[in-house]
Amino acid sequence: MNAHATPARVSDHPIDAMFLERHSPRAFTDRPMAEAELLTLLEAARWAPSAANHQPARFVWGLRGDAGFGRIAEALAPGNRVWAEKAAALVVVASKTVVERDGVRSALGTHAFDAGAAWMSLALQAHLKGWIAHAMGGFDKIKAAEALHMPADHELHAVVALGELGAPDLLPEAYRPREVPSGRVALSEIARRGSF
Amino acid sequence: MNAHATPARVSDHPIDAMFLERHSPRAFTDRPMAEAELLTLLEAARWAPSAANHQPARFVWGLRGDAGFGRIAEALAPGNRVWAEKAAALVVVASKTVVERDGVRSALGTHAFDAGAAWMSLALQAHLKGWIAHAMGGFDKIKAAEALHMPADHELHAVVALGELGAPDLLPEAYRPREVPSGRVALSEIARRGSF
Repeated sequence: MNAHATPARVSDHPIDAMFLERHSPRAFTDRPMAEAELLTLLEAARWAPSAANHQPARFVWGLRGDAGFGRIAEALAPGNRVWAEKAAALVVVASKTVVERDGVRSALGTHAFDAGAAWMSLALQAHLKGWIAHAMGGFDKIKAAEALHMPADHELHAVVALGELGAPDLLPEAYRPREVPSGRVALSEIARRGSF
Repeated sequence: MNAHATPARVSDHPIDAMFLERHSPRAFTDRPMAEAELLTLLEAARWAPSAANHQPARFVWGLRGDAGFGRIAEALAPGNRVWAEKAAALVVVASKTVVERDGVRSALGTHAFDAGAAWMSLALQAHLKGWIAHAMGGFDKIKAAEALHMPADHELHAVVALGELGAPDLLPEAYRPREVPSGRVALSEIARRGSF
């Protein structure tokens, strides 16, 4: 259990606790993450399903203090960087957007969807090991692509900040009220029987 | 545990068993799925994270024998329909591609990625409850969109067949060798430290 308990989410139908307990706070302790621990999170992502098993998801990562972490942090929007650069690790989630068969390259329509599945696996494995995983869309994709030498046939999706949950007062004051887990629209808004 | 054991996958780094044990076979028993059970799977998807909590993932579902199931099954590629129409449930995974704020509509760049995260949650909740969840990209998207009255600002990603794992000999002979869990490329192929 987290040291800093937050109001519990309530599901309308009984689901495994990890889906409710996983959330996306911003306050990190200074606990570092070992490379072996990060590889375990990426390993969970590796086993996510993908269309025709093309495995388009790609990850570039850095640990706090290393050069890669710095390059990723520098691409973050200022409002994200202020808290995310205190994370133990930063992971860029991308995907390869083309497949090659018999020397012919073609667009892979499912790359973003499949990268999302891999990200969810990473997030849940992180949660199960006691880490926060907070994904951000707010970063400069052009800057990140250049700094990380991303190939042209790839697309960036998110930067994930990973670390140990800390107390809200580690954050600038304006961020503290946002440490509460977010809610969801009703299931009937997103799932329908028979037709949209 | 499954009644029909398959060769075990081996991970390079220690991860929760669900990530390895979840896979995508095609042989279903005739066990039906109750609406309440399906709603539980969708509930897990509901709690997946999304950019700015926009929650773009959408689901349309049918239970075997109902009209919605039939409409979804009819859109499947013949090579998928032959096994997937024996599923207990079919779920179309889609996403809403636009957001509206202050009366202005704009494209949501993260809709497919976030729908993928929701799909992964559904797949894992299904696995934890003893169901197979096999996602397919092979279906007629135009036909499905029309038959299910999909709004224009939505995009289709996958059809998921859900059911109880059956013996391989329930399948046409040509499909039986494919009941083995798929492998993955090395982690070093998809995840790099510091840069692509």
